[in-house]
Amino acid sequence: MSTPLVATNSRVKEARKLSRRSVRTERRLFLADGPKAVEGALGATTHDGEPCVVEVFATPDAAQRYDDLLGGVDDVVLVDDRAMAALSDSVSPAGVVAVCRFVDVPLQQLLETSSPPLVVCADVRDPGNAGTIIRTADAVGAGGVVLTGHSVDPHNPKTVRASVGSLFHLPVAVEPDTEVAVRRVRAAGMDVLAADGAGELDLFEIDELLADDVAWLFGNEAWGLPEDVAGLADHRVRIPIAGRAESLNLSTAAAVCLYATARAHRG
Amino acid sequence: MSTPLVATNSRVKEARKLSRRSVRTERRLFLADGPKAVEGALGATTHDGEPCVVEVFATPDAAQRYDDLLGGVDDVVLVDDRAMAALSDSVSPAGVVAVCRFVDVPLQQLLETSSPPLVVCADVRDPGNAGTIIRTADAVGAGGVVLTGHSVDPHNPKTVRASVGSLFHLPVAVEPDTEVAVRRVRAAGMDVLAADGAGELDLFEIDELLADDVAWLFGNEAWGLPEDVAGLADHRVRIPIAGRAESLNLSTAAAVCLYATARAHRG
Repeated sequence: MSTPLVATNSRVKEARKLSRRSVRTERRLFLADGPKAVEGALGATTHDGEPCVVEVFATPDAAQRYDDLLGGVDDVVLVDDRAMAALSDSVSPAGVVAVCRFVDVPLQQLLETSSPPLVVCADVRDPGNAGTIIRTADAVGAGGVVLTGHSVDPHNPKTVRASVGSLFHLPVAVEPDTEVAVRRVRAAGMDVLAADGAGELDLFEIDELLADDVAWLFGNEAWGLPEDVAGLADHRVRIPIAGRAESLNLSTAAAVCLYATARAHRG
Repeated sequence: MSTPLVATNSRVKEARKLSRRSVRTERRLFLADGPKAVEGALGATTHDGEPCVVEVFATPDAAQRYDDLLGGVDDVVLVDDRAMAALSDSVSPAGVVAVCRFVDVPLQQLLETSSPPLVVCADVRDPGNAGTIIRTADAVGAGGVVLTGHSVDPHNPKTVRASVGSLFHLPVAVEPDTEVAVRRVRAAGMDVLAADGAGELDLFEIDELLADDVAWLFGNEAWGLPEDVAGLADHRVRIPIAGRAESLNLSTAAAVCLYATARAHRG
């Protein structure tokens, strides 16, 4: 067994730079942290068919503990605990991190290959929310997630972590122009439903609509969907609120909408 | 207008100590941070009828900005920006913080005065999750929330923030013994439903049960409900998973269960 690399090793230092969005964007590489994410990454390919994983770093302990997971990896790079702490975003690193190629797919490819329902996140800024929405979209069997406008980078370490592997399970596209994204989704034959506290439709009363081909449009966690963006949708749908809360947390609202859709499809 | 107090002022320093759970528990006081929380606190009383708010700190700017909110407060204590930063848990403080009496109610009182559905959180440790569940429980018109076992303190600043005022809208009880809590909830005539990925009932197929008097039992974010705790429930209910995700985030799972219940009640 080779000597574990230390934190100042150049390979470790290069990988560590991927915690910065600018470096990720330039290299189109990111870090998958922990066994669940690495497992997802090892089973994934990029949109043009390359293997997602470039290299895997592990502490000697973790390399043994996750032997089953890492058995098929040609060259696991052993690192010491301090080097792992430098690579990991977690306060208690699990000991295994993979350098991965970006997994986002072009929007057009997503639309050509994925079935509804789809999810469009417009200006979703919180990495935890974005990851949780990707996880929920995966859980309901959605066809894909599109992050538009100034949404968080889906390869952000916190988003990857919150998605608990789901980032590697379903196609995720990035489209800076929300209007372009919504128009293309509609052109692909889907009804776009804007989740909006002031929506004219009640989520509980639109099962027929939900059983059709739909895409959900969710807005920013603080200010929701601006008028011009909500106006791009076919319908605005509100989640009924019975108590004194004024609204729901974004990722819980998305879960309620997506599960209502999954249920309507079951009929 | 009086001179704003500085961070080293003893009144500010005493209030600041309430960021520690041990001090909160000893004094049965906590901090409500931001206009939404302060608004909720000003409209709330403790379980034995005392006003919730003890004193309000505000920066001169915020005192003007939130004049409508603070108009009825006899004595707003002005503080400077550094003192506010010391009192606030937020990275960008809104400028108004209230020292509040604990708002939790004895479990027996909650059971005697609240209508189903109820929510029981067993060993929910993440303050954000607990606050989000309280917010969602409020949104569906639930009768109350019980935090059991080693759950987070509902007066934790992050819980108060994530509840966005809902902590002051519905009764919240703390009961260290989960078994005692579940037995009492059942004795009050409710069917207890454990949310459990391996549950024998499918959430989408139990509308008749959900339309009855029920209490939901949710477990820890990492390990769920241990066998002995889930065994205390009348039924175990799973949220159907269609995709490759293994599970849902706790607060999104709770939202899906609570909204399925609200919908079943609507009939």
